[in-house]
Amino acid sequence: MSSVWGERIKLTIFGESRGEAIGIVIDGLPAGETVDIGQCQAELARRAPGHDELSSARKELDIARIISGLHNGMTTGAPLCAIIENIDADSEAQQPAIARPNHADYTAFIKYKGYADMRGGGHFSGRLTAPLVFAGSVARQILARRGVEISAAAIRIGNAESEQDTKNEILAAKANGDSVGGIVEVIAAGVPAGLGAPFFSSMESVLAGLFFSIPAVKGVEFGGGFALTQMCGSQANDQMCVEGGNIRFLSNNSGGIQGGITNGAPITARVAFKPTPSIAIEQMSVDLSTMQNATISTSGRNDPCVVLRAVPVVEACMAIGILDKWEH
Amino acid sequence: MSSVWGERIKLTIFGESRGEAIGIVIDGLPAGETVDIGQCQAELARRAPGHDELSSARKELDIARIISGLHNGMTTGAPLCAIIENIDADSEAQQPAIARPNHADYTAFIKYKGYADMRGGGHFSGRLTAPLVFAGSVARQILARRGVEISAAAIRIGNAESEQDTKNEILAAKANGDSVGGIVEVIAAGVPAGLGAPFFSSMESVLAGLFFSIPAVKGVEFGGGFALTQMCGSQANDQMCVEGGNIRFLSNNSGGIQGGITNGAPITARVAFKPTPSIAIEQMSVDLSTMQNATISTSGRNDPCVVLRAVPVVEACMAIGILDKWEH
Amino acid sequence: MSSVWGERIKLTIFGESRGEAIGIVIDGLPAGETVDIGQCQAELARRAPGHDELSSARKELDIARIISGLHNGMTTGAPLCAIIENIDADSEAQQPAIARPNHADYTAFIKYKGYADMRGGGHFSGRLTAPLVFAGSVARQILARRGVEISAAAIRIGNAESEQDTKNEILAAKANGDSVGGIVEVIAAGVPAGLGAPFFSSMESVLAGLFFSIPAVKGVEFGGGFALTQMCGSQANDQMCVEGGNIRFLSNNSGGIQGGITNGAPITARVAFKPTPSIAIEQMSVDLSTMQNATISTSGRNDPCVVLRAVPVVEACMAIGILDKWEH
Amino acid sequence: MSSVWGERIKLTIFGESRGEAIGIVIDGLPAGETVDIGQCQAELARRAPGHDELSSARKELDIARIISGLHNGMTTGAPLCAIIENIDADSEAQQPAIARPNHADYTAFIKYKGYADMRGGGHFSGRLTAPLVFAGSVARQILARRGVEISAAAIRIGNAESEQDTKNEILAAKANGDSVGGIVEVIAAGVPAGLGAPFFSSMESVLAGLFFSIPAVKGVEFGGGFALTQMCGSQANDQMCVEGGNIRFLSNNSGGIQGGITNGAPITARVAFKPTPSIAIEQMSVDLSTMQNATISTSGRNDPCVVLRAVPVVEACMAIGILDKWEH
Repeated sequence: MSSVWGERIKLTIFGESRGEAIGIVIDGLPAGETVDIGQCQAELARRAPGHDELSSARKELDIARIISGLHNGMTTGAPLCAIIENIDADSEAQQPAIARPNHADYTAFIKYKGYADMRGGGHFSGRLTAPLVFAGSVARQILARRGVEISAAAIRIGNAESEQDTKNEILAAKANGDSVGGIVEVIAAGVPAGLGAPFFSSMESVLAGLFFSIPAVKGVEFGGGFALTQMCGSQANDQMCVEGGNIRFLSNNSGGIQGGITNGAPITARVAFKPTPSIAIEQMSVDLSTMQNATISTSGRNDPCVVLRAVPVVEACMAIGILDKWEH
Repeated sequence: MSSVWGERIKLTIFGESRGEAIGIVIDGLPAGETVDIGQCQAELARRAPGHDELSSARKELDIARIISGLHNGMTTGAPLCAIIENIDADSEAQQPAIARPNHADYTAFIKYKGYADMRGGGHFSGRLTAPLVFAGSVARQILARRGVEISAAAIRIGNAESEQDTKNEILAAKANGDSVGGIVEVIAAGVPAGLGAPFFSSMESVLAGLFFSIPAVKGVEFGGGFALTQMCGSQANDQMCVEGGNIRFLSNNSGGIQGGITNGAPITARVAFKPTPSIAIEQMSVDLSTMQNATISTSGRNDPCVVLRAVPVVEACMAIGILDKWEH
Repeated sequence: MSSVWGERIKLTIFGESRGEAIGIVIDGLPAGETVDIGQCQAELARRAPGHDELSSARKELDIARIISGLHNGMTTGAPLCAIIENIDADSEAQQPAIARPNHADYTAFIKYKGYADMRGGGHFSGRLTAPLVFAGSVARQILARRGVEISAAAIRIGNAESEQDTKNEILAAKANGDSVGGIVEVIAAGVPAGLGAPFFSSMESVLAGLFFSIPAVKGVEFGGGFALTQMCGSQANDQMCVEGGNIRFLSNNSGGIQGGITNGAPITARVAFKPTPSIAIEQMSVDLSTMQNATISTSGRNDPCVVLRAVPVVEACMAIGILDKWEH
Repeated sequence: MSSVWGERIKLTIFGESRGEAIGIVIDGLPAGETVDIGQCQAELARRAPGHDELSSARKELDIARIISGLHNGMTTGAPLCAIIENIDADSEAQQPAIARPNHADYTAFIKYKGYADMRGGGHFSGRLTAPLVFAGSVARQILARRGVEISAAAIRIGNAESEQDTKNEILAAKANGDSVGGIVEVIAAGVPAGLGAPFFSSMESVLAGLFFSIPAVKGVEFGGGFALTQMCGSQANDQMCVEGGNIRFLSNNSGGIQGGITNGAPITARVAFKPTPSIAIEQMSVDLSTMQNATISTSGRNDPCVVLRAVPVVEACMAIGILDKWEH
């Protein structure tokens, strides 16, 4: 069960990078919700490469074709399926013989006994985040009508935190045939108190499960996160007061979640992306077809940094997670 | 669905801190596996409070009574249920009226409309991690026979990293009526390559979902984790070679997981615990029965630091997650 | 995943017939629902053997001890666990070497490689329906407050349809050392329209999945059921009209379910029970320890007919299935 | 959760009768399995209407386009998605205002608050069984290589049991503007002992859940089924002997399943289909847009009997259920 997710909202993701198409089925959406396809496409465009010198030169025209679940612009209550054709597929693409370090080439080879279609990264490709962004856009539109606003930003790229430094960091990596990672911070405001549950369906568990589904993510924290471990309880605790009949928290070190349940404060999380594993610099690896040592340099159309493109993916995961736990 | 977890191994956790008992049902265990109850009890003892001056003075005698699923010391294939009676229950305990900051008091009040039994933290209590430790011990014994060894340690408490500093840090917090958090690192060695899946069942998603089920956890990272965001790809990538016919990784920044699937290197993770929210220092809060501002000081039998006691809980989650994804 | 069920309401059943105890965890109950334990016990008593000459002479005192999830007589929202100790357990009981025909002895032996605790039928025993009845009673109490009334009856025992014939049929079977089966009909009135879904979560799929969980059930039908196959569409169709602003159906061949979704008419189902497999008449079988032919006669404390005792079990399944699909 | 099914094999079905396309995602297939698309198309052709005078005049060219999960004719281990375009869609089709009796028109109207796309039956249409047949064909090919053979037949149409009577029954119903139902019997031979589990994952529960997902199914029985209720235990029990070192059953009243687990004998089941609800004979109903009484006659392209076309659908459900519970 790798590609199905959720409790109320069920996501089923499918597709391979160089196959016919990729897509997603979203089950459990409430009926009668307007879906603005233009907004979905705008979100997909934010994720797509080829914008500028900072991302891959590949041009992916990610046009979502909605196959079911939408009628007269509104959800029908039946599963909503959208597919995105792989227009820019490279028919010459070959199965990679030499495992690219930190890719799924080796692990997929073991798990699927050599039968996985790993051209372009196959089902493991970051390209599969496009359907997630589509689903996230649908979820965000539904949540926006209920007062929830989600926004994310790259707060650090490599060692750079300002916008100009960020650009330089990426361009320097690109010039070196190297890559950089970074951190995306995401905030969901307007989330009501009472969503989630203790233990296995804690909002942290649900959201972390989604964030760690994004290729290249290696760390997730909520609210104060790892920094909380260096605070005293008296600093870390979010004190409360009543204001106009409502509870207000004097700080938000909990990131809007206590006991696994939302407390009405904004949900805040930070998601750590490792550097893109595909780099031009030559590295040691293994030819899986012969089990001989080899070297590999993955030049070509790869991104020196996927963090900027990952911002809408992180937003999508936040939206999907919240909608899944929405009460009523 | 808050208290049921898993794909092959299904866990169902139940109980409230001051109720009759707490416990767990483990479904999907292979039949014919020896369970050493002594070992289970030893793990429970590691988690229990009352050992020394560093933890709560409460004496919890966590004796697991196995009700089903074990016959002649071996698993039968039927669900294994264990319960732990709440011997040390305080019958005088009252529902807390004033929400303790950073506890689940407020969120549970909202979600369960005032009906949750929150005495001693209720179902949200850290006490509920005892059944998790029991299940983890069963899982560890099964995995150990398959060559997997799991061990964890507190690598930082507050700002202290050495053992003596750690002790001082905790005692200082205790003296101040305050509390501290920390980081637990866990390593699973001997895990075969090929476990897990891309996307929603990635080993990171599965394990993070479990780690974030532990009360007080606010951050999780694998391998290099957040530090990877400041490395170049050429540093972060785990290069590979063939050694004696087997793949060997020259580093383990991936924490044993690539593309969501284990690569045969040890799985490594770090789990961040916030400081214990119960402190003697007075804090601002709200009386939920009157919705008036109030102050609260949670003196008494609370731990100034739960991180040391959480070590076997983190190990348990690692064991359960791996066993759930075990192939054959 | 054999012992966990449900979408909103999660059931986890555990225990073996001659083990320490049997029980169930019910997760997902709304908070603040009163549970009348006396009513639960009354339902358990209806299922228990030893009432009269028509059932087994075994005395099972099925006292449900509630361990969690209930406080001040009301659900807390946390998982509700109840256990029933196996008081009447026969400590002399041996693993059966000769497989009893139509029991699970052989299939359990294969699946669990000889490690299943099959004393008294083990986890496969009809005794495990007691926890189901308990959970069903809780569900029925909650549904009753929402206007749903569930009742079942044995409409045929062997070839007998009247009460006196039924008694004679059972006593004759008992005298012959033989057994009989029968049909239980169940009706749920007051179910609102709109519960369930097309395809895999159709109300028929959900309820049939539960009914076929009851040991000895080999057939399930809804509304007209098998008899519908001999009607014309013009007879079978439930015509509709408006009456006092509400939809009324002129017949109920659909058994209250159309397109997998309730239509507001009573849900009706019939459940077929095979004859009790344990009989005194000698039969051919196999000694699984030696794989030699053998004969077996299961005399003793067995019921010549379980259908009457199964009535509350069928009601329980109906209640659980409806509550699982309840909207709000 | 209406459209997602399964434990090891996850099915996600989508599409509406007059929407763009229908389809299915199959997750959890083993990698390296050859899929013969010709065979899939042959199964789809068996289900398609327009063959002869016995079925609807609609011509549906059900061509499955495989979008993912297949490479070089073999499964890759990634989710396999197939879509079937709705070529014969009737763009003039209108939402039905008057609820067709025994259709989902009314129940969908209630559940989806009037937003369901019910043109041609929408997501509730029998047309959605085409993707099921596709998935079943993939499953059957995999199972065939493991020795499992599945075949079904209509054993009764209305009151007719011979082939000529069947034809006359259908033609008579057609001439009358009426319809008939019937019973499909399905047998799976070569299934190994040990698949399934007691209680909620019993093979009967799993298979019944699938069979009742097929629109128009109102009854399911295994082995002797309802007829077992009129046998004595001594007749109903399947006695056993050893033959050539293997267990042989002298009868198969259990339908190959005991205690929810396969016993190695063929799995046998019978599935009852109600008569097609769409008939030309005028019937009483309600105009849902005005809540006024109305009459309706559903003339046109409907089948007087869907049972013959349902035969491959029943086979598909059997194959999917067995593959989901396959061990290794």
